[in-house]
Amino acid sequence: MNVNGQHYRTIWPEGEAVVRIIDQCRLPHEFALMDLHTPEEMGDAIRRMNLRGAGLIGCAAAWGMYLGVRRHANDPDFEPRMHAVANDLMATRPTAVNLAWAVRRMQAALAECPASSRCAIAFQTAQEITDEDAEFSRRMGQHGLELLRDIARRKSGKPVQVLTHCNAGWLAFVDHGTALAPVYAGFDAGLPLHVWVDETRPRNQGAALTAWELGQHGVPHTLIPDNAGGHLMQHGMVDIVFVGSDRTTACGDVANKIGTYLKALAARDNQVPFYAVLPSSSIDWSLGDGVREIPIEQRDAEEVRRVTGWDDSAHRLATVRICPDGTPAANFGFDVTPARLVTGIITERGIAPATREGLRNLHPDLAQESNAQNP
Amino acid sequence: MNVNGQHYRTIWPEGEAVVRIIDQCRLPHEFALMDLHTPEEMGDAIRRMNLRGAGLIGCAAAWGMYLGVRRHANDPDFEPRMHAVANDLMATRPTAVNLAWAVRRMQAALAECPASSRCAIAFQTAQEITDEDAEFSRRMGQHGLELLRDIARRKSGKPVQVLTHCNAGWLAFVDHGTALAPVYAGFDAGLPLHVWVDETRPRNQGAALTAWELGQHGVPHTLIPDNAGGHLMQHGMVDIVFVGSDRTTACGDVANKIGTYLKALAARDNQVPFYAVLPSSSIDWSLGDGVREIPIEQRDAEEVRRVTGWDDSAHRLATVRICPDGTPAANFGFDVTPARLVTGIITERGIAPATREGLRNLHPDLAQESNAQNP
Repeated sequence: MNVNGQHYRTIWPEGEAVVRIIDQCRLPHEFALMDLHTPEEMGDAIRRMNLRGAGLIGCAAAWGMYLGVRRHANDPDFEPRMHAVANDLMATRPTAVNLAWAVRRMQAALAECPASSRCAIAFQTAQEITDEDAEFSRRMGQHGLELLRDIARRKSGKPVQVLTHCNAGWLAFVDHGTALAPVYAGFDAGLPLHVWVDETRPRNQGAALTAWELGQHGVPHTLIPDNAGGHLMQHGMVDIVFVGSDRTTACGDVANKIGTYLKALAARDNQVPFYAVLPSSSIDWSLGDGVREIPIEQRDAEEVRRVTGWDDSAHRLATVRICPDGTPAANFGFDVTPARLVTGIITERGIAPATREGLRNLHPDLAQESNAQNP
Repeated sequence: MNVNGQHYRTIWPEGEAVVRIIDQCRLPHEFALMDLHTPEEMGDAIRRMNLRGAGLIGCAAAWGMYLGVRRHANDPDFEPRMHAVANDLMATRPTAVNLAWAVRRMQAALAECPASSRCAIAFQTAQEITDEDAEFSRRMGQHGLELLRDIARRKSGKPVQVLTHCNAGWLAFVDHGTALAPVYAGFDAGLPLHVWVDETRPRNQGAALTAWELGQHGVPHTLIPDNAGGHLMQHGMVDIVFVGSDRTTACGDVANKIGTYLKALAARDNQVPFYAVLPSSSIDWSLGDGVREIPIEQRDAEEVRRVTGWDDSAHRLATVRICPDGTPAANFGFDVTPARLVTGIITERGIAPATREGLRNLHPDLAQESNAQNP
């Protein structure tokens, strides 16, 4: 998508020795690129969240493996050395499903590969993983676009009002994103639309990242507190909700950023369609009841007690405490939206009802593969 | 309630020439008192929100009138001068229902009163209004306490888990508060309980005021982002929700701080009882359908774009911007929770079902009086 009128992805090779990323730690207050030369630098970038987001972390790990191959390609101890590189990368964000998946795909491509072509194969595979991520996002956008077209037709020219939570935009993937992919597809196709952006406390990914990327691409949007969505839906100011998903069960329960469930409840109460947009790779076919079975990570309570942002008067980043010193706080990272509240699930293959049958019919191969692994 | 182990109200006369308040602008980072000597100083304190909250604003206006009487008691132009004082006070927060009510009650008490007893009558009436506010809050607490006792009995010793939104505590009234009155009553009666405190973006009254007053009184509590309540309820971690109300319709629809509706939806979805606690004076008997009929104030968008708090490293208050410069933002102050989601309404008279019949049966005199005024 565009930044200052120029097309960017979130990660790309710059020649053979450098992988370049957008430094997301400095967004939205500064747009800066960051060059990574070694698997250790890539590991640090993942750990420190210079890049983040389900799809992007996988691609970053693949490029981290490539940087490792460049160093060790002609080493007689290639395999144990690359094993160590893989383990280090996987330890950076242990719960990120895509990260381990990308590392394993790189390892599979390198197995049995002659030393002389290791670099080329690693580069090519990392590029494939990256291109595939972008292509899958593009397809999700095209499927979601049909929903937006239907609404636009009904509203005869008035902007389609989308609400989204957190950041499931292109910054979390390579390009297009998931929840925002239909928005970009619609905007680029000339549909009139407007996005309500939940700020998404405690880390404010909506305010910092979603607002930034929509603004850079030129998509009309308005930032709102997480408290506002219900009121907007009661008053007919939201036509459709798009959210991402970190993990989706075989039944269609959706684990996503904390607060997603509240928006799904409001959508149901006001007959607003609610869609989760996600790559099929994030469906966990072994899980049924998400509320009972998906463990919810608890994060540092300081994220709740404090807010970081730009101090316009001091011209620097600052962190402020919003509660009395020593106030106890709790910080649950995600919640689970039960499938009964989800109108549909959009993957790179199409749109499925949020049911076991619906998901299986769209992904029979993946559902079966998982059955074979977990009989 | 207690601050540093000592009992306080939010407002009281300090001798005859001074009205003293807790300066809420400096909470939670500093506990400071503020002395007001003139109706103008009181008006400024209301306007600048050194004090705020439905009940407290009314009492402040009454004491502002008293300070005006002190100045003008022997003035031959007493009536026009006091008329000007009243108008100035009412203009400080034009939408605050209690403010106009308290000013009119003071005017009624002063009408026909001989010059020599004006000061005494004004003092006595302001004190009555103040004491009545505290007494009504105390009664709401006693009614709500019965609900907490029932839950405590069922949980046999495990803490009763309360969730609240915004600040409807004693800082918003003279003492006890509304939503928090049952909590204080339960705590003082020795019930084991714990309060989940919604931070309440954008102004963070939960993080700043509710967390502070619960902490000062010693009530166990945990600050959470507004996004978390649904997840807590899904996992059986909330036994009851208490919220305040700015305006309640004759049918039991509840207008309260933005985000209240989302918590009511989650409570209903998880069979958690949801109560609004309010003085009967805030029931608007002329209104039916709250979602359609109650206008929702839009506030300054800067409150959404920026967060103010204590910068621990610079030892001062600071304001940080959490989004790109120039991001459009919307700031709806309140939302309306439909009566169908409200388990019951607690007033100083008792607990009523959130229905026209329920509210009328508990307040037949008030409902009738309004019918007479709005036939």
